[in-house]
Amino acid sequence: MGREQELRAVISRVGGLDEAAAAAAAQRLDSLTKPPGSLGRLEDIVKQLAGITGQTLPSVERKAVVVMAGDHGVCEEGVSAFPQEVTPQMVANFLAGGAAVNVLARQAGAEIICVDIGMASPLEHPGLLQRNVRRGTANMAKGAAMTREEAVEAVLAGARIAEELAGKGVELLATGEMGIGNTTASAAVYAVLAGVPVEDAAGRGTGISDERLGHKIEVIARAIKQNEPDAADPLDVLAKVGGLEIAGLTGLILGAAAERKPIVIDGFISSAAALAAARLCPASAAYMIGSHQSHERGHSKLLEEIGLAPFLKLDMRLGEGTGAVLAFHLIEAAVRLQSEMATFESAGVTKG
Amino acid sequence: MGREQELRAVISRVGGLDEAAAAAAAQRLDSLTKPPGSLGRLEDIVKQLAGITGQTLPSVERKAVVVMAGDHGVCEEGVSAFPQEVTPQMVANFLAGGAAVNVLARQAGAEIICVDIGMASPLEHPGLLQRNVRRGTANMAKGAAMTREEAVEAVLAGARIAEELAGKGVELLATGEMGIGNTTASAAVYAVLAGVPVEDAAGRGTGISDERLGHKIEVIARAIKQNEPDAADPLDVLAKVGGLEIAGLTGLILGAAAERKPIVIDGFISSAAALAAARLCPASAAYMIGSHQSHERGHSKLLEEIGLAPFLKLDMRLGEGTGAVLAFHLIEAAVRLQSEMATFESAGVTKG
Repeated sequence: MGREQELRAVISRVGGLDEAAAAAAAQRLDSLTKPPGSLGRLEDIVKQLAGITGQTLPSVERKAVVVMAGDHGVCEEGVSAFPQEVTPQMVANFLAGGAAVNVLARQAGAEIICVDIGMASPLEHPGLLQRNVRRGTANMAKGAAMTREEAVEAVLAGARIAEELAGKGVELLATGEMGIGNTTASAAVYAVLAGVPVEDAAGRGTGISDERLGHKIEVIARAIKQNEPDAADPLDVLAKVGGLEIAGLTGLILGAAAERKPIVIDGFISSAAALAAARLCPASAAYMIGSHQSHERGHSKLLEEIGLAPFLKLDMRLGEGTGAVLAFHLIEAAVRLQSEMATFESAGVTKG
Repeated sequence: MGREQELRAVISRVGGLDEAAAAAAAQRLDSLTKPPGSLGRLEDIVKQLAGITGQTLPSVERKAVVVMAGDHGVCEEGVSAFPQEVTPQMVANFLAGGAAVNVLARQAGAEIICVDIGMASPLEHPGLLQRNVRRGTANMAKGAAMTREEAVEAVLAGARIAEELAGKGVELLATGEMGIGNTTASAAVYAVLAGVPVEDAAGRGTGISDERLGHKIEVIARAIKQNEPDAADPLDVLAKVGGLEIAGLTGLILGAAAERKPIVIDGFISSAAALAAARLCPASAAYMIGSHQSHERGHSKLLEEIGLAPFLKLDMRLGEGTGAVLAFHLIEAAVRLQSEMATFESAGVTKG
């Protein structure tokens, strides 16, 4: 079986939600000591998790954030505020436990899976999952970022990681990433897949000036013109103007959906990957949970395009999975409320 | 010293933030392995906590939510979806650990302080703080909800609770409440203090119909016309169209500010109390931290009036302190990031 066929097999395993379980969860929610619907979107989370897992009282005890690292040839165009060497430096920081996502994962009681899916230089570390597909993308402003085969390989690698984690009993996943230059690739993927102007898709990333933002927009427009990605073929888009960590996250999401595991979508880069997943497999969107609305221009519309609504508005623009891991607490809160609250009957409270 | 003078003494103890500590905290934030400012509003929280506590690495280890319960004479006008007997029933539920706020406080590792500040009927329970000022307010549609002296007494009771908790080592407070009919009183307080039309201040509370909302608006307008509260005198407003739990929370906030403790403001009712606190003592606003934007109409503008921006958008409309307790996690995240993240220097990461 060819690799692209293997990917089709993953996609074909993505089923619909269990409507009966979601309805049973909704019924229980209405019996709890609160005005009906007054827990707002926490109630939506409970119903979604019930639909995903088939459980009226779903569990999200075991949680993991998968941080995919990749490098971007387009960095040579000067699109980022940080040099490319920061990718391996930050991956080393993740492995040492010193980055923002480490702190938040410790607080959330979640494990971090660090993956080299496309770093430019190898990094030996017992904690790093070695899944390198190629040593960084090519400069998309001059040609395709990678081949279609490489894109498929990265998507499949992500899907396999989701399958492995599900097999180990992980019940809630989150997307994270590291890759200097990856807001440039993400903006290109978003612009092409959603058909929005590059100026509306691209933002300041780690914090570039007005002038450099203008240059970044011009570079993305050039990459799209040069490569002519086919908006109706998400794998073509990921290959020509995407990134290895973006493709890997697309696969992680598809794999999570195939395994009936909920997956929390982080910021702009993760959302570009989620849009590609939703286009490859519309049914996968029902397994995604939004987290935060980042400061990055375009993120809000990108989330709307996927049909995700963020819970958190913290003006964060860090990536790594930080916003998604912060949202773990809200999802756990929803699950605990459903399990632990008294009912009108048990507490002897009069219904309205 | 008269009781109102005692309250003035509390207010006079509210000092400005420690700008040097806030600046030192900001300097450390910029040394951490992330693009400057990329943790967004979590960085604002760190700086605010540093300014409040004088610590570059503030702690929010000990947390408490104070749930004030009171009844409302205006309920006899039929403004709520639930009957008044639900107030003591829900207080009993809090004391038994079965309400939403109990579940969320357990998750957050926070204690709950339940206070009878104005319940219509006494409730004996070792876990209930007995601070009853009067057995429910009078019907404000016919006359003042309470006397000025009673309002001052309730405010002072709240301030004393904040002082006691600070004395026991509590480092982070949140406001919570229970009182059937209290969105009606809160809307009246907000409309008068902010000078906004009653139609823009009043919402559906626990979930009333269009028709009953129209009636609620008419009742509030009648109460304001009947009592002529003086918008420039927040104690007059609290007394004439407020509630005992609203006044108690106003005091809790002022007491927290006097003790230099941060206090998280929950939903619509808590925000009305916070607006009264900010009007009695503008310096107290610097000690408040917003939490969520509730589904209640008017809450968004009310928060703006105080200068608070919510982090969470969950469409909740439950009160009890639920939104504020959910935000504890974000505040704790901010504090942990400041303490635990590696610096560019310690991690050997290149600065942009």
